Amino acid sequence: MQILYCNIGNPHSLGQQPVTFFREVLSLCDHPALLDKSETHALYSSDAIERAWQILEKIPGRATGAYSHSQGVKGLRDEIAAGIAARDGFHASGDNIFLTDGASPAVHMMMQLLIRSEKDGILCPLPQYPLYSASIALHGGSFVPYFLDEETGWGLEVDELKKQVDEARSKGITVRALVVINPGNPTGQVLAEENQKKIVEFCKNEGLVLLADEVYQENIYVEDKQFHSFKKIARSMGYTDDDLPLVSFQSVSKGYYGECGKRGGYMEVTGFNADVREQIYKVASVNLCSNISGQILSSLIMNPPKVGDESYESFMVERDGIISSLARRAKALEEAFNSLEGITCNKAEGAMYLFPRLHLPQKAIGAAQAAGAAPDAYYALRLLQATGIVVVPGSGFGQAPGTYHFRCTILPQEDKIPAIISRFKEFHEKFMDEFRDVSRDEAPTGATIESGGD
Amino acid sequence: MQILYCNIGNPHSLGQQPVTFFREVLSLCDHPALLDKSETHALYSSDAIERAWQILEKIPGRATGAYSHSQGVKGLRDEIAAGIAARDGFHASGDNIFLTDGASPAVHMMMQLLIRSEKDGILCPLPQYPLYSASIALHGGSFVPYFLDEETGWGLEVDELKKQVDEARSKGITVRALVVINPGNPTGQVLAEENQKKIVEFCKNEGLVLLADEVYQENIYVEDKQFHSFKKIARSMGYTDDDLPLVSFQSVSKGYYGECGKRGGYMEVTGFNADVREQIYKVASVNLCSNISGQILSSLIMNPPKVGDESYESFMVERDGIISSLARRAKALEEAFNSLEGITCNKAEGAMYLFPRLHLPQKAIGAAQAAGAAPDAYYALRLLQATGIVVVPGSGFGQAPGTYHFRCTILPQEDKIPAIISRFKEFHEKFMDEFRDVSRDEAPTGATIESGGD
Repeated sequence: MQILYCNIGNPHSLGQQPVTFFREVLSLCDHPALLDKSETHALYSSDAIERAWQILEKIPGRATGAYSHSQGVKGLRDEIAAGIAARDGFHASGDNIFLTDGASPAVHMMMQLLIRSEKDGILCPLPQYPLYSASIALHGGSFVPYFLDEETGWGLEVDELKKQVDEARSKGITVRALVVINPGNPTGQVLAEENQKKIVEFCKNEGLVLLADEVYQENIYVEDKQFHSFKKIARSMGYTDDDLPLVSFQSVSKGYYGECGKRGGYMEVTGFNADVREQIYKVASVNLCSNISGQILSSLIMNPPKVGDESYESFMVERDGIISSLARRAKALEEAFNSLEGITCNKAEGAMYLFPRLHLPQKAIGAAQAAGAAPDAYYALRLLQATGIVVVPGSGFGQAPGTYHFRCTILPQEDKIPAIISRFKEFHEKFMDEFRDVSRDEAPTGATIESGGD
Repeated sequence: MQILYCNIGNPHSLGQQPVTFFREVLSLCDHPALLDKSETHALYSSDAIERAWQILEKIPGRATGAYSHSQGVKGLRDEIAAGIAARDGFHASGDNIFLTDGASPAVHMMMQLLIRSEKDGILCPLPQYPLYSASIALHGGSFVPYFLDEETGWGLEVDELKKQVDEARSKGITVRALVVINPGNPTGQVLAEENQKKIVEFCKNEGLVLLADEVYQENIYVEDKQFHSFKKIARSMGYTDDDLPLVSFQSVSKGYYGECGKRGGYMEVTGFNADVREQIYKVASVNLCSNISGQILSSLIMNPPKVGDESYESFMVERDGIISSLARRAKALEEAFNSLEGITCNKAEGAMYLFPRLHLPQKAIGAAQAAGAAPDAYYALRLLQATGIVVVPGSGFGQAPGTYHFRCTILPQEDKIPAIISRFKEFHEKFMDEFRDVSRDEAPTGATIESGGD
């Protein structure tokens, strides 16, 4: 049986092709001797050659094989800052950029700095991408969950944040930071601007560091939503660098590029005093620097080809082709899930995932308990056995007590989606036939986090 | 004034050129579309093209942009294992290889796993590359130093290990592992086979994990010494995977390749039970995987061009040119240091460093104390101010009480060495004239570790 991987946010593993311009530049920077050869023009676009030259000029000694500054090559950080400024309409500085081997190490760095003991808590969404719970556990802190509201499309309500902060504080936890994943993983929602303003206000009032996981900023699939960085929101409210400590995480692994294997990314760090900044730098320097190819690619995604560049049109065809196909896949899967008995599914407004809710029959829950598995894990295992489709049980991300979900990526290539849908439907209908209750009733269980996937 | 960097093991930053074959393969793997084009043969050697094909075939879906298995691409690990087996004459398995973003993250992973509290100690050499002290501090363990014997060429004596282990144990420390850096950083010595056997025996008897930092395995500059991996030594003594937990660290940043910016490397993990192995895997998976270019380069350094390959001769010219030049630079600098009043310097048998001892006049020590600096830091600062030469004070690596050193890399390009030597001599003679005691006397001070460099 063919295994159909819908479990991991790893687009290239499912056949997504790399963006040509980005790979041309990386290829040239890996072998700069090519830049002096006339034959190179037969193989590479002229703007890729030009960009490779520009990048090499930014790297001291043009040495792509040297350790860089521990924050990353200064010229590349400046280019990224210019890209952020162009995106947001507010100033950004290369001095605030820390280039990292993907977003995960950046998150670990911040957790390492924020967590002093188990008395320090970090507010994280439930459901959440389990990088956060893992990192908090690794660094010995307390995971302070807040629930996203499934009924309102995985809404993030400030009342809920306040309730959870107060409750944590009453237990002696010092809540130090709020993690917001926008667009959401595993939940796929895109926050509205007004909502973001309230979140910024909340962090300001409560004295929290805002850790903004914005790695899906270029994965937006609906007309009525746009990505707004939290920094843009904060600046538009008049808050300056002095008002709010804010970290924005970005990665080359997501977006339309999906370059997971390159391990590139950065965090933009604003609103910390010089002492804290120095500590961040110290932690960054422990592993010397992030890989230079990842640094270069980070600069490329924040400064892709522009109108008039030789590659612009073909680049836009590739880019829009990927994004629009992802949007169609998201819609097709969402509609399929919603067409089924016992499944409800919020729209994937962004990111790479759907997180459908399973309204499981009591009999299925009983079968899962008899098998010693969480009900959604039991469902996912049965799905895998019957169809080869791999999804991640909702219990891997945490979910409201008594609810069951699974995360399904929208990443299988578009021509595979109809077969996935029909196999899924066939399985689900049989599953429901096997377990359907005469009168449906859901048994509540505790929210748990077991293990998810990226 | 021109700054002459002799402080960091970062060869490409000082003009060392990348090895052409390695970069050709990386360039092709970054842009696999090139492999189908006939023009590619005009720009790349045929064996690089062939190797790129072979590597892509090892990567599922040929997707160099996908996350790999958290240990690294299996086919690349197998290739590395074959390289280890060819080097050592003993079996190696790809299942035991963990590919990492350079050796530093691998060291951190092991420290994270070994250290449970400040009651767990790790035996480390003094002088030591301060990655170890930093990592132990970060993970909350106890640094248990053992002194290398400068008189015997930075000899590593098992009696000293035993003494330090016993002393640590008497303080309630559980000593869990022994770090050996071979060839030595910052000390440049290459361990003799008999010495290594005693170290293996010691670890076996004391129940210690042997953490073998072998990143300089291809940097050997003397005829009478060879690199022997600790795994080869242990296997040659008849110890199997069941007898001794052993981790060997390797990196693409050192050797003749010196590809620091690629952040590639691996650890070979043998002699742990399945439970521990699973924990290592879990920690490795927290950051998903190491970067694929670094993984590919790790496979290339362990399987470079062979006799008969198109690139073999030019590869060997590049390789031997770098190694023999490094050997000449090491010798020239060592002789220069030893020719000076108040400096003694052991041979750099390997690695990338000299670690000369400064027999400082009492008056210089007094001047340093008046300036609030460690005496060798004071010397290094004066050297920098007078000549632009940057070295790292010995206090950054730890040293025997009452001794002063500095670490000087052998990495400036060969044509720069005479100027460095003459500037250095001129400075040193003036420094001695300024501070020379009528009768020389050294004041003892405590061994300290401040901060070193890679």
